[in-house]
Formats: sequence, structure tokens, C-alpha cells
Amino acid sequence: MPTSTPTAFRSITPGTLKGPEWHQFMLGAVAPRPIAFVSTIDREGHVNLSPFSFFNVFSSNPATLIFSPANRVRDNTQKHTLYNVRDEVPECVINICDYALVEQMSLASTEYERSVNEFRKAGLTELPSDMVRPPRVAECPVAFECVVEQVIAIGDSNGGGNLVICRVVQSHFREDILLPGNGGVDPHKFDAVARMGGDWYCRVVPESLFEVPKPNRNKGIGIDSLPEHIRHSDVLTGNNLGRLGNLEEPALPSAAEVQAYRDEPLVAYTLNKYREQPAEQRRQLMLLGKTLLEEGRLAEAWKVLLLAK
Amino acid sequence: MPTSTPTAFRSITPGTLKGPEWHQFMLGAVAPRPIAFVSTIDREGHVNLSPFSFFNVFSSNPATLIFSPANRVRDNTQKHTLYNVRDEVPECVINICDYALVEQMSLASTEYERSVNEFRKAGLTELPSDMVRPPRVAECPVAFECVVEQVIAIGDSNGGGNLVICRVVQSHFREDILLPGNGGVDPHKFDAVARMGGDWYCRVVPESLFEVPKPNRNKGIGIDSLPEHIRHSDVLTGNNLGRLGNLEEPALPSAAEVQAYRDEPLVAYTLNKYREQPAEQRRQLMLLGKTLLEEGRLAEAWKVLLLAK
Repeated sequence: MPTSTPTAFRSITPGTLKGPEWHQFMLGAVAPRPIAFVSTIDREGHVNLSPFSFFNVFSSNPATLIFSPANRVRDNTQKHTLYNVRDEVPECVINICDYALVEQMSLASTEYERSVNEFRKAGLTELPSDMVRPPRVAECPVAFECVVEQVIAIGDSNGGGNLVICRVVQSHFREDILLPGNGGVDPHKFDAVARMGGDWYCRVVPESLFEVPKPNRNKGIGIDSLPEHIRHSDVLTGNNLGRLGNLEEPALPSAAEVQAYRDEPLVAYTLNKYREQPAEQRRQLMLLGKTLLEEGRLAEAWKVLLLAK
Repeated sequence: MPTSTPTAFRSITPGTLKGPEWHQFMLGAVAPRPIAFVSTIDREGHVNLSPFSFFNVFSSNPATLIFSPANRVRDNTQKHTLYNVRDEVPECVINICDYALVEQMSLASTEYERSVNEFRKAGLTELPSDMVRPPRVAECPVAFECVVEQVIAIGDSNGGGNLVICRVVQSHFREDILLPGNGGVDPHKFDAVARMGGDWYCRVVPESLFEVPKPNRNKGIGIDSLPEHIRHSDVLTGNNLGRLGNLEEPALPSAAEVQAYRDEPLVAYTLNKYREQPAEQRRQLMLLGKTLLEEGRLAEAWKVLLLAK
């Protein structure tokens, strides 16, 4: 990894900026955030629908989702969703939107009067839920019917959060976004959207998706155990080294395997072409190793990189 | 909006699938999720570093971040991070990664022994924090120094979560990702990454970023108040209607303004070209309105769409 130039940071102590400014620093950095599109109901049966990006899954067993209708930064008022789940009917449906719905979802975040049903304003369709009173959004590809277990206030000031702890009791997944069998959601078919700071959203397009093989039970050797010439290469990036460090010890190629790899056509060509320039020869082998690594050909990359010593 | 064909859903009641399968359904749907790259320390000063995607901001005042080291679905063991903040030193740094670091972050999620410092394994640099004992990650573009206020267990079974409620006491933002002044983080400069289901990640590339003007104090007229011929158009999408419904009542063009717009060159051309085919004329105007809408030219779009009656 090339040694980088020293980087400049701006340090900000909470409380030293105006509330809305600090809010944007936090929301710009903790992003993209998933969005809960929450339908609730009051005692009289008036339906409410509103999106929240202070939201995530926090446990799969018990199946627990948490969202937070924050007190408004502007005037410290609270949202109808919070009144409904805390004071009236402790149930909700957490609907998940895809890109096709994002402007309708945004419209539902308008602060209409309490009696206004945002399903109607946003042109969305109510579907009866199986196990809870609030309806779900027919157009949403996923819906989690929830019982609200607890509401925990985090402070009572402007911007203060209110954790709505939701136990999932039923869920619905649109068939066309699922992998076969019980494989779950296909990220290529689910056109997911998430919140960034300001008015920005992020959409999961093919160019934005990538895979990193998860280190599970196996313990990778770590970047600290990589050979010096690899670890300090100015060709390889931190991501390249991370991938190499993920390899388990026994999977390392033997010295004999590495030497045998000199006969591979592209390696042999490189060794021969730069035989009078040992530094350039090492550099070219390093670049070849990097390419193999980024093509996911880890075993071959290792052999070339070890040859590049 | 065209009437859609009925859609098929798969309904899943929690507890009816195997734990790891249900886990993937939840994690595939609640995505992309932001990632907390958390450094902690034990009483003896051993440093730990591990990523968690059950994470979000939940309040900006008090500045509150919550992450959840879940009990392992596999064997119900708990993570070193949880031991450290709950039983040893109730402080942490929540570092935020960008794309350049993602493989190193993934490597740090390896289950090394408790005495192993993942900074070293992942080839990352410790920087002393200003206000807490755990160091921060020098390579991360953002770091939130936190005091852990409370740890709340959600169930004690495999997959059960543990809410670590963190109060931010200091923060650091790399200058090169910031907007001018106190504008916060620039989403085009911050190469953010987030977790999807399985081994998938999402990266915020330019193609994935888009803006939706936020309805603030103004109350949009709503899709239910759009003229019938617009609301039931088979040319306009839900997102088109959402944008139109976001308009405030007084901003609607007057009948005179709409009629005057017949003289606009492209409108005049369309009116003339299809003057013998009224249905096609309406359709072409509707398509023109849709294009204007998607170019953000809302006022012009409205006039064309109202002419398309």
C-alpha cells in the first residue's frame, strides 16, 4: 500500500454548531440509511403513513426492527406516527419502498393534518394486514407487520429521537424480488432506495453492487502477516491487501507451486521481456497479480505476487 | 399511472423458517444498511475493531448512534466488542468507512482471538482519540468518538440483538469530503459503502445518487387532487405523479398561463402535427410533460400536462 500524505480532518464537538447544521453532518456521514415507510392507525381508525430513515434491523431472533420519529429540529413538535404507536394503537406496518415509489413516499412525508390519510395523498393502495390493524402498502415490495413493544425517548429536545421497538409478527415479500427457494431477497432484482444527507437519495443500481467474500470461521492470515514486498508494494491498494489477508494459512501456495508458475505463458513472457530490468520485472508481476486479484483469481494472484519478490 | 396487474407476495411468519434463512430475508429487505466500524478497548488496554451493519443515527440532539452486536446466529456466542463496551470500558469510536477500505473492514470482521488487535490484522492505523480511550481509524473519512450510555439486550437467543446506545462526544470529518462552510458531507465526494444481504455491498456511485426536493412546511396538493386525466394517465409513472402532487396549490398555473403556453414552439408543433388525431395529440403532450418533469422543469410540465386534457 503506498504511504499516503497526511490528511486534514475537521473536528466538531456536538453542541458547537447550530442544530440543523450538525444534523446534516451526522446524516451525511451515516449514509446510505434504509427507509421505513410506516403505516399506523389511531383509536378512531384514521390511517397515517410516513417515511423514517432513522431505521434498521437490530435482531433477527426475536425479529426486531427499530425506527425513530425524531422531534422536529425546527420546532420540537412530534409526529403523528409517534402519537399513534405510543398513545393509541401500538402496532404498525414497516413497508419497504423501491425506486418506483420514491417520489410518492417523499410526498407522504408532507406534514398534513392528523385526519389526512397519506395513502390517498400519495396515491397508494391500502391492503388489509394479516395480524395488525394498520393496513400495508400494496405497491411496496416488502412489508413487515409489527407489534410495538416499547417506545424509548432519547432526550426531549429538538432533534431528540424516540426509539420505536417493533417485533415483526408477519412479513410479505413480492415474489419477483426473491431468490429461488429460501434464499431471501435478490439484490439485483430489488431496486432498493436509501437516504443520504440533504435531499439526496441513493438507488442500488448494478454499478453500485459488489461482493466481498465474508470471512467466516476461517481466520485470514491478516495484512500484518503478508510478505513484506507485498505489504509495502506501491502497486497494491488497501482493498487488494485486505483480500490477500483474508486467505487462510494452509491455502498459501507452496514454494514449488510458485516456482512452477514461472512457466505460465503470461508470467513467462513478463519474466523474459523484463529480464534485464529486475525492478520493472517485479513491478509488472505485481501489476499482473493485482489484475488477477481484482478478477477474483486469488490462487493465481498469490503465485504471481510471490514471484514478484 | 397505469393500472398494474395483481402482484404475488410470499408471506412469511417469523419462526417458520430456519434462523439463518429468515435472517437473510430480513437483511436482504432492510438494505442498504450503513456500517459502524467500531473500535473498543478492554480494561488491560487491548484494542478491538469490528464492523456492524445493525447501525444508524437515531437522534441528532442528543447526538445518538446505536449499533447492535447480535448474538451469533450459528452458536449464540457474543462478540468482543460487546464484552468491551458492556463489561469493561463503556466507550467506543464509530468509524465510517469508504469504498477504499471495504476489504480491510471486512477482514477486521474475522473472529480473531480476544487478544488480537484487528487494526494490525487489517493493516489500519490507530490515531489517539480526543475524548475517549479507544483509538480511531486514521484511514476512515469520518469518526464519532462516543460514550456508551446503555446496553439493552433484545432477547438472549441466537441472533438476538444488543443495542449499544452511544452518545457522540467528539467527531472528525476528512476535509476533502465536506461541502463548503457548515454544509456537511458532500455525497459526491464521500465514496460511501453499505451492507446488503448475503456477501453483497453497495457503493454510492454517481449513477446511484438522485435528489428528491423535500416537501417541508408547504403541503403539496397530493396525488388525490391531481386532475383526473393526469392521475389516470397511462404515460405517467408513480414517481411522476409524486412530483406533481408535491406542488403547492397557489403555484398551479392559471388557465390563461396554460393557454398562452400553446404558442411555445414544441407545444405548437405537437398541437399542429397531431391536429387530426386528438387522442395521439393528448398522448404526445403527456409524453412531453413527462420529459419536462423528469428534467426538473416542473412549471413547464404542469402547463403541458394541463393542455393534454
